[in-house]
Amino acid sequence: MNPVVIRTDKRAAPSDIAALAEVGVSTSHEAMGRTGLMKPYMRPIYAGAQIAGSAVTVLAQPGDNWMIHVAIEQVKPGDILVVACTTDNTDGMFGDLLATSLKARGGVGLVIDAGVRDVRVLKQMGFPVWSRAISAKGTVKATLGSVNVPVVCAGALVHPGDVIVADDDGVVVVPRREAATVAAIARKREALEEEKRRRLASGELGLDMYAMREGLAKAGLVYRDDEDE
Amino acid sequence: MNPVVIRTDKRAAPSDIAALAEVGVSTSHEAMGRTGLMKPYMRPIYAGAQIAGSAVTVLAQPGDNWMIHVAIEQVKPGDILVVACTTDNTDGMFGDLLATSLKARGGVGLVIDAGVRDVRVLKQMGFPVWSRAISAKGTVKATLGSVNVPVVCAGALVHPGDVIVADDDGVVVVPRREAATVAAIARKREALEEEKRRRLASGELGLDMYAMREGLAKAGLVYRDDEDE
Amino acid sequence: MNPVVIRTDKRAAPSDIAALAEVGVSTSHEAMGRTGLMKPYMRPIYAGAQIAGSAVTVLAQPGDNWMIHVAIEQVKPGDILVVACTTDNTDGMFGDLLATSLKARGGVGLVIDAGVRDVRVLKQMGFPVWSRAISAKGTVKATLGSVNVPVVCAGALVHPGDVIVADDDGVVVVPRREAATVAAIARKREALEEEKRRRLASGELGLDMYAMREGLAKAGLVYRDDEDE
Amino acid sequence: MNPVVIRTDKRAAPSDIAALAEVGVSTSHEAMGRTGLMKPYMRPIYAGAQIAGSAVTVLAQPGDNWMIHVAIEQVKPGDILVVACTTDNTDGMFGDLLATSLKARGGVGLVIDAGVRDVRVLKQMGFPVWSRAISAKGTVKATLGSVNVPVVCAGALVHPGDVIVADDDGVVVVPRREAATVAAIARKREALEEEKRRRLASGELGLDMYAMREGLAKAGLVYRDDEDE
Amino acid sequence: MNPVVIRTDKRAAPSDIAALAEVGVSTSHEAMGRTGLMKPYMRPIYAGAQIAGSAVTVLAQPGDNWMIHVAIEQVKPGDILVVACTTDNTDGMFGDLLATSLKARGGVGLVIDAGVRDVRVLKQMGFPVWSRAISAKGTVKATLGSVNVPVVCAGALVHPGDVIVADDDGVVVVPRREAATVAAIARKREALEEEKRRRLASGELGLDMYAMREGLAKAGLVYRDDEDE
Amino acid sequence: MNPVVIRTDKRAAPSDIAALAEVGVSTSHEAMGRTGLMKPYMRPIYAGAQIAGSAVTVLAQPGDNWMIHVAIEQVKPGDILVVACTTDNTDGMFGDLLATSLKARGGVGLVIDAGVRDVRVLKQMGFPVWSRAISAKGTVKATLGSVNVPVVCAGALVHPGDVIVADDDGVVVVPRREAATVAAIARKREALEEEKRRRLASGELGLDMYAMREGLAKAGLVYRDDEDE
Repeated sequence: MNPVVIRTDKRAAPSDIAALAEVGVSTSHEAMGRTGLMKPYMRPIYAGAQIAGSAVTVLAQPGDNWMIHVAIEQVKPGDILVVACTTDNTDGMFGDLLATSLKARGGVGLVIDAGVRDVRVLKQMGFPVWSRAISAKGTVKATLGSVNVPVVCAGALVHPGDVIVADDDGVVVVPRREAATVAAIARKREALEEEKRRRLASGELGLDMYAMREGLAKAGLVYRDDEDE
Repeated sequence: MNPVVIRTDKRAAPSDIAALAEVGVSTSHEAMGRTGLMKPYMRPIYAGAQIAGSAVTVLAQPGDNWMIHVAIEQVKPGDILVVACTTDNTDGMFGDLLATSLKARGGVGLVIDAGVRDVRVLKQMGFPVWSRAISAKGTVKATLGSVNVPVVCAGALVHPGDVIVADDDGVVVVPRREAATVAAIARKREALEEEKRRRLASGELGLDMYAMREGLAKAGLVYRDDEDE
Repeated sequence: MNPVVIRTDKRAAPSDIAALAEVGVSTSHEAMGRTGLMKPYMRPIYAGAQIAGSAVTVLAQPGDNWMIHVAIEQVKPGDILVVACTTDNTDGMFGDLLATSLKARGGVGLVIDAGVRDVRVLKQMGFPVWSRAISAKGTVKATLGSVNVPVVCAGALVHPGDVIVADDDGVVVVPRREAATVAAIARKREALEEEKRRRLASGELGLDMYAMREGLAKAGLVYRDDEDE
Repeated sequence: MNPVVIRTDKRAAPSDIAALAEVGVSTSHEAMGRTGLMKPYMRPIYAGAQIAGSAVTVLAQPGDNWMIHVAIEQVKPGDILVVACTTDNTDGMFGDLLATSLKARGGVGLVIDAGVRDVRVLKQMGFPVWSRAISAKGTVKATLGSVNVPVVCAGALVHPGDVIVADDDGVVVVPRREAATVAAIARKREALEEEKRRRLASGELGLDMYAMREGLAKAGLVYRDDEDE
Repeated sequence: MNPVVIRTDKRAAPSDIAALAEVGVSTSHEAMGRTGLMKPYMRPIYAGAQIAGSAVTVLAQPGDNWMIHVAIEQVKPGDILVVACTTDNTDGMFGDLLATSLKARGGVGLVIDAGVRDVRVLKQMGFPVWSRAISAKGTVKATLGSVNVPVVCAGALVHPGDVIVADDDGVVVVPRREAATVAAIARKREALEEEKRRRLASGELGLDMYAMREGLAKAGLVYRDDEDE
Repeated sequence: MNPVVIRTDKRAAPSDIAALAEVGVSTSHEAMGRTGLMKPYMRPIYAGAQIAGSAVTVLAQPGDNWMIHVAIEQVKPGDILVVACTTDNTDGMFGDLLATSLKARGGVGLVIDAGVRDVRVLKQMGFPVWSRAISAKGTVKATLGSVNVPVVCAGALVHPGDVIVADDDGVVVVPRREAATVAAIARKREALEEEKRRRLASGELGLDMYAMREGLAKAGLVYRDDEDE
């Protein structure tokens, strides 16, 4: 790995990004055939944020946030910074100063497979972060990494320009070229869910609504009354 | 294990269930002689809920929520769905559609040794969940498990009809036949605590209130002034 | 280890403790040259508390809270109880009764490398706790430990009388004799950050503000336009 | 839980125990319909041992091995001691002295959801142990637990007299009354595997031997040649 | 993700694969600029194996080994099967029957981000496996995944045909097109290490051999004699 | 923390170090009143080594082994290098070249709260290591730490010159000034154990040998025959 910063304009269409933000993580993930999720250890620092944006990727070294400074210059309005690390690390690579800078450049959120700090201020700023840990541990600026190269972040492959969707359920990566298709499928799925929700709320069973009884019986499911006293 | 669904009417008395809901997890657990707790990795998806109900148990397969659909038919008003899994798994087996259905059948909560998703909506619905993880990971409906068999959930043995008590401190299982006794002991314990709280609040030391000084001395505890500069 | 309770008056100056409370964990940690942090698994039971106080230390046994009762007698107004354990343990060693007692003695918070319970009540009381776990698991009073001896708590060395600073970012230990120096450095650091925050908010890049470009180039960082279609 | 020691003669038939020892963990587990396994964190302290025996169960307190001393009196030749703990704990509750005693009473192994120590000596003695951890941490003898009550050990329910099977793959619990049936099924399964092994070794594919191709196609599996350069 | 099996002939040159096997994991990883490593939780089931081979990739579902059967048909002599899973899972997806089949087709090893069983037999067969866990937990054949698609396995991106190098230090992935370059760099690195090893063995310090003293001094390192009694 | 290297001659008496090596970890730990143990995640890279030596301490940065090179100059014959890290890190900071150098200077082992690599060669060299992880992950030489300052390593406080005892049970730290006392107590303890071992091997119960029956009865232990069919 030769340290490199790639300048790129690749982004998905804003309307597709907006659509994915609206449907959220679980629906986007289902619309992709159940792929693209980051590991569930990635948690928001506060509840309630739901965003989507284009990934500016960072490959950082453990305990070192130098490349985050480098990456912010590559951020365009609406982007999300995605920080992967060359090894498992929970140090607080990002705090309120970096958030101030990232926000000033138009960045709308941070996804970091490491630690974050100043979380009270970040919440006050309304700057959403999904991270592996909250940690005050300070970092150095000593070793190069890369910006806008493909990275594996929390178990998911992220290319620069991919659409990141994040909410209280976690983080999912939608490949840039699939954003339009996924957004379309996701919207259709949501529409269908509305009708299902109504039927289930009225007391109809999923067993009947999804016509599962035959399949269960064929698979060998047996019903029995409790005879035990 | 032959997959089976047991139909059962076994429930503890509603008044005992209500009493256990009122005293909460820690007191119920103490009243049982410090038994019945699930592992502390079981956390509520939002703070503040405190419930009790009768367990409808599910033994699910990893990445598969088929049996949750089956189990909902067995739920009666006031019940809590308790989902164990045949192996450690964090997939999002339960979301807002299942919650809508479970709620429509009278279910008052979910305890799941796996993942849950749509947590923002669940919170809006006021549907409480205690889970091992929050994860958007979608599941299949392919392999049978069982409903209303005894299960080990998060380290605790649960029989169908046992009383589940859950609050911000975690989840405890009160065996159905012991519910009345435990409720009675718990209430007595609570009454005693009120008096203790008053005395401690006035500055009395636990050392004196519990008469510990003699026991500590006998065990060999030594007091010394700090001589170190 | 012979079980012992050390009576001590060692405390840092109240003004320094107050100053550290104001700057919080991350800044105090940076001011100490990036040392003194507890592991990031130490989390507050509710968001928003930010405190500092003098450590009264406890070395407890697993599943045993006897020494916490002993320690409360040694607490003076403004102190923080710091509980270490001789092995990894998540049992609920501390609940609302102990909090009532500790608060009555002037204690302002608890830092415990074990579990805590009654967290809903603790939140209502406004009594802040940083812990390894939330667990209803009850404990015994059977085996001696020590009070006000040096302990390793969540990876950090704590001497009695050291200043504990805790907020949403975690917990840091400032050695008693260094409190004044650290407070002074921390305040200076904060003052500098204000100016940086203003510049970053106006869109200036960290790359320029910190004059990083030359160092990055010297280290070998290369910029390249995306040629990939 | 009132502390109690149950004296019991319940054991499975020696021939069934011997048969289960011979087939080992994975086959026994499959013969039970894929149930009864302890969590995979239970590992042998040395490779190569493969045993079965009747469970004498212990419910211990964290950091306390008093009840192990009590339990050894209840051990009969061929038994395996199974130690569960009321909470997660890795302390070294068992070492070479206890092993000497347990062996002298006819015990053939230990399964402990906690720590073990003196592992070099245990290996020299040829005394097999499956544990959650290896730890030198010493324990006290201060708090009662129980012997020969049902316990949950490493996620599996164990009744006194159940057959424990343990080898390099882990530990499985065969309910006493099912031992004969499981042994019979397991032997049959082994016989079938011999033939399968021969065919696979000759190069026949599982796809053909198990006739999977039709099922895969029906499920929608597609084959494609790599067109990518 | 539409389930798919890609048939491909892509392989690196046998001589490069052999060279990488010879230098092993740490040297290959360094030769790649410190990239390509799987997480260190991937451990060999027995010590001493050191191999390299071309990746045939599998994306499996939790608790389901259907696609491993499918994948074996795609294995050519010298290949290594690399199994990723759509979620964290430790079930025993692979045992001695599959090993017999894989070996018969020419497969030389398995890398699996899940569990493996029958480890005693696998060791006797001399069939090396690197896995996340050892577990007897049986699996089903119910849900499709894919074969020979790019996968993220234990944190590393693997394309079909990439060279997998595995030994007691772990597992590294060398992209197919970089195999020749990496092998060349690795060999050179090894040659240099021989000379370094000789000098260090003679007592020369790394401080001098690598000429570090000036850099350390410039960075601010201070030497001091211990004045403390 | 200002980076510093302390030159020191402090060592315990060679005869005490030898005695501690002979009794091993568990006995030394008991002789110290059950203190001084490192966390049980510290495991030997191969079984069977049992050593003691004087600690030369290192405080390293994550992913950075610069200070290990610095520390080797401070090692005297018989010493053990003890590497702590400012944060949790598993990178392979130490391999066969450093082992060659450390051995050439008289170092007899390594205890590292991070990763180690080249483990096959280290085993061939007979150079024992206790570590948190095995990982091929390469490190940089970019950021200063300290040598021969007090460190917290794997949960234990270590001062330069303290005696480190390590074997298959783990690692324990004996403070330099207590080495003679601890060695004496440990030897006495071992002598007593010989007699106990003989009695237990002859079938005498611990219950009787330690005269536990009265204490158990007083604590409330009840014996009952199994009445259950």
